[in-house]
Amino acid sequence: MTKISFKDDYSEGVHPSILDALNKTNLIQQDGYGMDDYCAEAAKLIRGKMDNPNADVHFISAGSQANLIVLSSALKSYESIISTDIAHIAVHEAGAIEAVGHKINTVCTENGKLTPEDIKSVLDQHGDEHMVKPRIVSISNSTEIGSIYDKEELTKLSDFCKHNNLLLYLDGARLGSALTSEHNDLILSDIAKLVDAFYIGGTKNGALLGEAIVVCNDELKKDFRYNIKQKAGLLAKGRVLGVQFIELFKDELFFDLAKHANSMATKLSKEISSLGHEFLTQPVSNQIFPILPNELIEKLKEKYGFYVWQKIDDEKSAVRIVTSWATKETDVESFIVDLQS
Amino acid sequence: MTKISFKDDYSEGVHPSILDALNKTNLIQQDGYGMDDYCAEAAKLIRGKMDNPNADVHFISAGSQANLIVLSSALKSYESIISTDIAHIAVHEAGAIEAVGHKINTVCTENGKLTPEDIKSVLDQHGDEHMVKPRIVSISNSTEIGSIYDKEELTKLSDFCKHNNLLLYLDGARLGSALTSEHNDLILSDIAKLVDAFYIGGTKNGALLGEAIVVCNDELKKDFRYNIKQKAGLLAKGRVLGVQFIELFKDELFFDLAKHANSMATKLSKEISSLGHEFLTQPVSNQIFPILPNELIEKLKEKYGFYVWQKIDDEKSAVRIVTSWATKETDVESFIVDLQS
Amino acid sequence: MTKISFKDDYSEGVHPSILDALNKTNLIQQDGYGMDDYCAEAAKLIRGKMDNPNADVHFISAGSQANLIVLSSALKSYESIISTDIAHIAVHEAGAIEAVGHKINTVCTENGKLTPEDIKSVLDQHGDEHMVKPRIVSISNSTEIGSIYDKEELTKLSDFCKHNNLLLYLDGARLGSALTSEHNDLILSDIAKLVDAFYIGGTKNGALLGEAIVVCNDELKKDFRYNIKQKAGLLAKGRVLGVQFIELFKDELFFDLAKHANSMATKLSKEISSLGHEFLTQPVSNQIFPILPNELIEKLKEKYGFYVWQKIDDEKSAVRIVTSWATKETDVESFIVDLQS
Amino acid sequence: MTKISFKDDYSEGVHPSILDALNKTNLIQQDGYGMDDYCAEAAKLIRGKMDNPNADVHFISAGSQANLIVLSSALKSYESIISTDIAHIAVHEAGAIEAVGHKINTVCTENGKLTPEDIKSVLDQHGDEHMVKPRIVSISNSTEIGSIYDKEELTKLSDFCKHNNLLLYLDGARLGSALTSEHNDLILSDIAKLVDAFYIGGTKNGALLGEAIVVCNDELKKDFRYNIKQKAGLLAKGRVLGVQFIELFKDELFFDLAKHANSMATKLSKEISSLGHEFLTQPVSNQIFPILPNELIEKLKEKYGFYVWQKIDDEKSAVRIVTSWATKETDVESFIVDLQS
Repeated sequence: MTKISFKDDYSEGVHPSILDALNKTNLIQQDGYGMDDYCAEAAKLIRGKMDNPNADVHFISAGSQANLIVLSSALKSYESIISTDIAHIAVHEAGAIEAVGHKINTVCTENGKLTPEDIKSVLDQHGDEHMVKPRIVSISNSTEIGSIYDKEELTKLSDFCKHNNLLLYLDGARLGSALTSEHNDLILSDIAKLVDAFYIGGTKNGALLGEAIVVCNDELKKDFRYNIKQKAGLLAKGRVLGVQFIELFKDELFFDLAKHANSMATKLSKEISSLGHEFLTQPVSNQIFPILPNELIEKLKEKYGFYVWQKIDDEKSAVRIVTSWATKETDVESFIVDLQS
Repeated sequence: MTKISFKDDYSEGVHPSILDALNKTNLIQQDGYGMDDYCAEAAKLIRGKMDNPNADVHFISAGSQANLIVLSSALKSYESIISTDIAHIAVHEAGAIEAVGHKINTVCTENGKLTPEDIKSVLDQHGDEHMVKPRIVSISNSTEIGSIYDKEELTKLSDFCKHNNLLLYLDGARLGSALTSEHNDLILSDIAKLVDAFYIGGTKNGALLGEAIVVCNDELKKDFRYNIKQKAGLLAKGRVLGVQFIELFKDELFFDLAKHANSMATKLSKEISSLGHEFLTQPVSNQIFPILPNELIEKLKEKYGFYVWQKIDDEKSAVRIVTSWATKETDVESFIVDLQS
Repeated sequence: MTKISFKDDYSEGVHPSILDALNKTNLIQQDGYGMDDYCAEAAKLIRGKMDNPNADVHFISAGSQANLIVLSSALKSYESIISTDIAHIAVHEAGAIEAVGHKINTVCTENGKLTPEDIKSVLDQHGDEHMVKPRIVSISNSTEIGSIYDKEELTKLSDFCKHNNLLLYLDGARLGSALTSEHNDLILSDIAKLVDAFYIGGTKNGALLGEAIVVCNDELKKDFRYNIKQKAGLLAKGRVLGVQFIELFKDELFFDLAKHANSMATKLSKEISSLGHEFLTQPVSNQIFPILPNELIEKLKEKYGFYVWQKIDDEKSAVRIVTSWATKETDVESFIVDLQS
Repeated sequence: MTKISFKDDYSEGVHPSILDALNKTNLIQQDGYGMDDYCAEAAKLIRGKMDNPNADVHFISAGSQANLIVLSSALKSYESIISTDIAHIAVHEAGAIEAVGHKINTVCTENGKLTPEDIKSVLDQHGDEHMVKPRIVSISNSTEIGSIYDKEELTKLSDFCKHNNLLLYLDGARLGSALTSEHNDLILSDIAKLVDAFYIGGTKNGALLGEAIVVCNDELKKDFRYNIKQKAGLLAKGRVLGVQFIELFKDELFFDLAKHANSMATKLSKEISSLGHEFLTQPVSNQIFPILPNELIEKLKEKYGFYVWQKIDDEKSAVRIVTSWATKETDVESFIVDLQS
């Protein structure tokens, strides 16, 4: 029997309406490398959604690629990045950022979110040319443990960065889930105002592949396509990305898909809570981290795919459950039943 | 009026049967990052086609990425690459290879192909630690100007490399076109025997995107996925690549598509020849470089998209015409008519 | 009035007998780039002192350069370094290691020394290709806060590394001070047996400039001069380094100079202790970190140069006092008097 | 019998008056890492000599290091360098420039000198983000084959660069020899006006080691010490460099030493000419390249050290003869005698 996977939000292919769009446009000839009509149209739609007609929008294949391209574009070789110690860039990109020459100064946090105080603690330790020079702050929203930034938090971060001559970058691999969380008060245009660059994740929100890098700060715009090309991120058939992002943003599909993922996670977390289990972090997006008895975990593993995240004590562990645009409500319900048995 | 494009072989999307396969497998849950069943199956098919059960096969998004990953995997920081001066890696990757630390020693060639003598000329100039140490030879088949290697040429290169402790790598962005050329006598299993690593280009031969890296030399296999990940080449939905390569290699689709591209190019070049025009290089694959009067070029440009490659004299220039799996015979015929008018 | 500096161990020039040697050999013609007779002779002397006739010895200008060359030589791009979070390579080299592509996985320690448990904690977190692959452990002896490894500690580290397929590297910027500490039980030949590579610091122990890299592990020896050259570390007049290391190692000068530095530090720390002050870490080498009242610190600063290292509480701070081969006993005595007034 | 070396201009140690200065200042305590009084004084002297009070002057150990630091400071990762194909940076630095991420676009020249036309030929081939973006022109004066730029040539280069948004950098490893050549009409202040950055070579003109980087363009000045530190170029005892450059520039020692080297080369080349031998390039500085019969070369090799540069035909080869500040006139005379026998 094949297991039902709650491992991640990229276990399925692509939302059917996006596949339809790829089909319909398939044989129309287009220029290569992102110079096609679809990318232009998708960029326009995204600029519209965030009410920022001057932002540059570039489409690339993967989130790690987006991080690599933006961060390396923004930095001189002696400049560093500040992030949490669980940031994807710091842990799960096989040293990609260091491989292009930059140190990441990490700060330990409890909830995966950076605060001005965290950043200040790094700045206080970096005073002269014997050390790297912190230059850009990188945050994720939602974070790697499913938490999200609210408007006040992001505004404070943004203000602090501006006052300290730091750039602010947001890894939006799961931005859809963050922006459609019940706990969220940020909208896309807030993000565009508060950060210097970010990316809107498609891969984990219904696209076949693809992320939209948004460059808000004029200083980062120049020669950006050179960086994309050099980091091997300029797809010959850029149309593949453009067509998908048109579908995601011509109406509300991007937000609808994320809402579904969130609602499945909420359904799960409410039930888990009502059964008396606690969570490693408060469940607010499509990644939740319930703490379950090891025995129960073993039993669930027979039918479901998920990761054991962290040992809590000899009897309990936190697991990671991820829902997606494609998660079936019946699978959630089945999981809930098995939780109780 | 939209022009008919002969600019490149990636102006359209994907072969319909591949799109069907993506559709059929779309909602089946799979593990991420290339650990899915489809990638495993596609790798098996490719190993079968080249009669090399021990080769490692990895799927990634783009040709520049394949070059970057293989070459950087193979080299220490002081080791260099030998290529022609028109090699894609040397000219058209925005310095991606240098950006990860390696010098490319280029040799000027007339037909885009490297010979043992070319390589020897580089080796003769590199004797000690004040210079880089040449370590890998990178060739393209077909080459950047459409020429192809025959079995004798590739064998001689391979022998020379082995005797000189050099690795041999083949950029197969257009390997399909090379292997199905009327002038070709190489088969996939020859390639696998004669080079240490190569990639089979999907993007330019009917795939939506995707290349299959084949690592034949055991020494290059270790930790290869670390390199893919670090260069941001590990696609979350690796299934997208696996599904496509199954379609290309479960029967003969890969070769059939390339044959079509070649036959369209042959039809064009025969007519061009019969009209008394010469070629910059002998037309043997899906890229041809006829030399045409500038006046005719200007007229053709009104209806067709293509690149002017090189000025020949005040009256003539060489242009690049590229055909693909999707090129319509009617468009070729229309072009031929317009050539004569 | 010029202050008396206890800031560091490189405030003066070079030990006079070394300067004499430079003078005597000055006009004798030699080959460049370390191929001179003096470098050969110095390497032979060092191999003799450590009873390892097969080690490779290379001379370069500076400690940061030694770290950069050895670590980058030893690693593939996805491999990482494990060090303490106060290691010179992790903090005070302006990101030099990351600039050539490698992540440093740091561990927080109390006394500046790494243990097998520290290393294991990093290994436990690194399991697959989504993360870097730890490959080399880098320690400093004496450490950045003046502590030293004893034979048992270094042996345990070495064993642990061997059992876990990790290389072990020792930054010996202040190896002289470590090996001549009253608390030390290691000799040079122990080091050469227990680590894969290390360097013997000249700059901070009486040389004008210069460090001797010792490569013990055969696997790291190949093409090492290519790495030195590429990192701009091959000095045209390599003789300058060879001549100095002959002086340091033809008799016992290297050890005598370090002993003097240590004895000056011991004299200071004994008096400081007897006055009732505590230390941030136990004083065992030529760097000591007494905790003094802020008021006293301010007064001392009028006559002496030294760094305030760390705030302890509102009334006290730890300061760093460094002695050297050139520290005058009269200056130490004067400092002691001023401590008491 | 030891051979007399004409291999290079760094076969001896240091000019005696510089050694005296090192001796006199030896035990005076100074701050480390180039923040000492001597570096400050030397920088002031150099700024005075070139009549440019605003230039930044930094002292580092070696020429390859100077090139590496300046070029990497000036460039973004996708920007490239234009140089001749025999430039030291392109051939004899073991790929150091590529190792920090930059492509060098080389141009073949006959006399080792770049012209605006050469640069234009590179610019013409680089039009979009698929290629690197040429950003800095790197020349050497004197060049790697002993030729020198005159004022008109350098002015034209400088104008061309300014009009094309290119920076101009000059590798002055042998700037002393260039500026004191009989054929020279440039002075130090011309250089400072015409280029964006350059370095004044000490190592090959009488210093023990050391080069003075001069940054003229304000845009390149920011955070420059970060770059020096990161490339491991910040010497702990920076005083060693400062003291030497004071000696070289407090009076005319720098120029006097170069004049001696040139006069020895001139004496040699006049005699060689009068004996009917030709030269590979016109002899104008301290590197000359006479074309001699192979038999004579073999005979000379028994008593003299020098490099055979290039085969001319079956009977003759060009050799490289280098004179220095330390070349003895008696050795030159002896060589002349042996040429004739």
